[in-house]
Amino acid sequence: MQSGVTFSKGFTADGVACGIKNNSDNDLAVIICEKGAKAAGVFTQNVIKGHSLKLSRQNIQNGIAKAVVINSGNANACLAERGDADALKFAQLSADAFGCNPAEVLPASTGVIGKPLPLNLISAGLSKISPTIDGGLAAAQAIMTTDTKPKQAEVGFLLGGKQVHIGGMAKGSGMVHPNMATMISVITTDANISTQTLKLALKTVCEVSFNRISIDGDTSVCDEVLLLSSCMADNEYIKPATFQFSIFVDALKVVCIRLAKMLAADGEGATKLITVKVSGTKTNDDAHKIASAITKSPLCKTAAFGNDANWGRIITAVGYSGASFDPLTVDIFIGDLQVCKNGGGLPFSEAKALNILKKKEVVYTINVGSGKGSDTMYTCDFSHDYISINADYRT
Amino acid sequence: MQSGVTFSKGFTADGVACGIKNNSDNDLAVIICEKGAKAAGVFTQNVIKGHSLKLSRQNIQNGIAKAVVINSGNANACLAERGDADALKFAQLSADAFGCNPAEVLPASTGVIGKPLPLNLISAGLSKISPTIDGGLAAAQAIMTTDTKPKQAEVGFLLGGKQVHIGGMAKGSGMVHPNMATMISVITTDANISTQTLKLALKTVCEVSFNRISIDGDTSVCDEVLLLSSCMADNEYIKPATFQFSIFVDALKVVCIRLAKMLAADGEGATKLITVKVSGTKTNDDAHKIASAITKSPLCKTAAFGNDANWGRIITAVGYSGASFDPLTVDIFIGDLQVCKNGGGLPFSEAKALNILKKKEVVYTINVGSGKGSDTMYTCDFSHDYISINADYRT
Repeated sequence: MQSGVTFSKGFTADGVACGIKNNSDNDLAVIICEKGAKAAGVFTQNVIKGHSLKLSRQNIQNGIAKAVVINSGNANACLAERGDADALKFAQLSADAFGCNPAEVLPASTGVIGKPLPLNLISAGLSKISPTIDGGLAAAQAIMTTDTKPKQAEVGFLLGGKQVHIGGMAKGSGMVHPNMATMISVITTDANISTQTLKLALKTVCEVSFNRISIDGDTSVCDEVLLLSSCMADNEYIKPATFQFSIFVDALKVVCIRLAKMLAADGEGATKLITVKVSGTKTNDDAHKIASAITKSPLCKTAAFGNDANWGRIITAVGYSGASFDPLTVDIFIGDLQVCKNGGGLPFSEAKALNILKKKEVVYTINVGSGKGSDTMYTCDFSHDYISINADYRT
Repeated sequence: MQSGVTFSKGFTADGVACGIKNNSDNDLAVIICEKGAKAAGVFTQNVIKGHSLKLSRQNIQNGIAKAVVINSGNANACLAERGDADALKFAQLSADAFGCNPAEVLPASTGVIGKPLPLNLISAGLSKISPTIDGGLAAAQAIMTTDTKPKQAEVGFLLGGKQVHIGGMAKGSGMVHPNMATMISVITTDANISTQTLKLALKTVCEVSFNRISIDGDTSVCDEVLLLSSCMADNEYIKPATFQFSIFVDALKVVCIRLAKMLAADGEGATKLITVKVSGTKTNDDAHKIASAITKSPLCKTAAFGNDANWGRIITAVGYSGASFDPLTVDIFIGDLQVCKNGGGLPFSEAKALNILKKKEVVYTINVGSGKGSDTMYTCDFSHDYISINADYRT
């Protein structure tokens, strides 16, 4: 089935198990665009950068990529010169396997930090990998680390009467914040578009999708999101600031927001997806501060795990977020149940609150009544399993 | 025994159970200075402020306090006009009980947000409270919420040959960050000093003590710390920028850092105290950013709980902290065991690391090799009990 990264024309993919992980799960993914794809990327803002990621960031400057290769189980990070050399070898091995130039390879690695990349295993893995148009799912499985399920999203739409596709895959599911080698997403499209316009679209869409999730506590910033286009659709060339561009961006949003929500819902140990909608701020930036504070508050997230309508923790996070607002005009809703009006608690049915909080998706709505700014973020609850997963991740 | 807030001359205290909490624990504390104490305070920077706290902040402007009254079990927060009126009544009831002016009372409340303060219970509690010089411990017990033990610290020292005392108590142990009504500390002294100088000393010392702990995830800011002086020691009047002042500040540091470390060590669900020492930054502010990032990282804290020497998470937090430094000069030590040199992992004995991490106190030392800035912060690990405590705190 053509799903995820192989939903768009011109792309093949595959995933295999080559033994980098301690189990028999897939751990090496490849996405191929034989004719060469225009490529754009956003990369972590962490000062410490993984070696594979650094090479990807360098190679993407060429604007054309033929292969994306991703291993899970090892981050190829914090290994000084050796890590850089290994990234180059990773790209060279891939170029040899797929008959392209190493500069046309975008390598990525995710997993444990500080252990040398097992290139012998990767080399063996590359020899048995065989990308096809049905390989999207195998690739999505191969990039998983603590994810419990593969994440893919697709959308097809008409642009000037021509069929265009966007498909993608992503992996989390911990350390999702300004970070390295932990959140990875690859999106493909066949839209006819320039590299510059692709970059602009990706940056715009990341702001409302991958940059709006928080799992571990910090404001989320993309670790690495790649957007590749085979340009094989017959649509008229998309230029910035046109109606066509806005349609393309909207379609890309659908894919990226869906993937971002999947990441949040499958956050480490998560039992539910929490959407935080903030409005009524003086600026959008203030709304983002409030949404960030709530989505990263362990107290709000443990309360959600306990199905506890503890709006006191929500208003507390609103208060320390750094946003400016009038504390006497704050309204808070859990689902459609209003629990706080004008900064004061309302009597509400605990049974009704429990019913809302027990669901797999919960929406917190906060209106601070001080303006027209707004923002939406996605997170998950904080459970015992989060502690279990992370207390002995490495050992 | 004269301990905590009654260690200094001129102060009496007591704590009683009046039924605000659902159990039979002490939940009402009082500290009395009959002759009237000079008073200084630092208060939460949260936009949302508890009603009792707001009244304290107002009353402290008078510079003289005769009574500090603190209830646990109820935060008297987010109750609009009613909360303000209740704070006034709380002060009036206390003034009636202790024969002073309501403006000389500093009320504080900590506990659940959004529920009206049970003034009838408080009134009954005040009628049976009897402050003595041995009541420090009872008061320290009465301000506890999720704390597992009362927290007191004392220091006596000579100032120009005269005996001076500083003693204090504090409570945590969750929601320790820019917040309200959750961290409370009261420090007393008998040093002969002006209100202005007292304020200066408190502000200076908070920066390296209560403002250097993080339990829940955010940078720590005092919620409410009161410093009261009976001025009953015979020392020469302390003036700012003198040798006497620096001795007083150093002694105050001893008390406040000890209390701050107790708060961190008794953080909700904590099994160990983690001290994070950062050096080698271009500025002290950069060092603080790094220390903050590590102390608030759930990934670093769960690894500590699991006795996992996962320095990759530490260097990751260093990298996203916002500090500027050269990634190739970062050294990391867990206890005295170096695990990372010049940004790259070192081989180390996992057994030795485990021995260090199993202890009740663990020190992480990070030198980024880019300058002379430094900072130290305190936090705890993140355990299953944190989730249990907070998933059903309110219900």
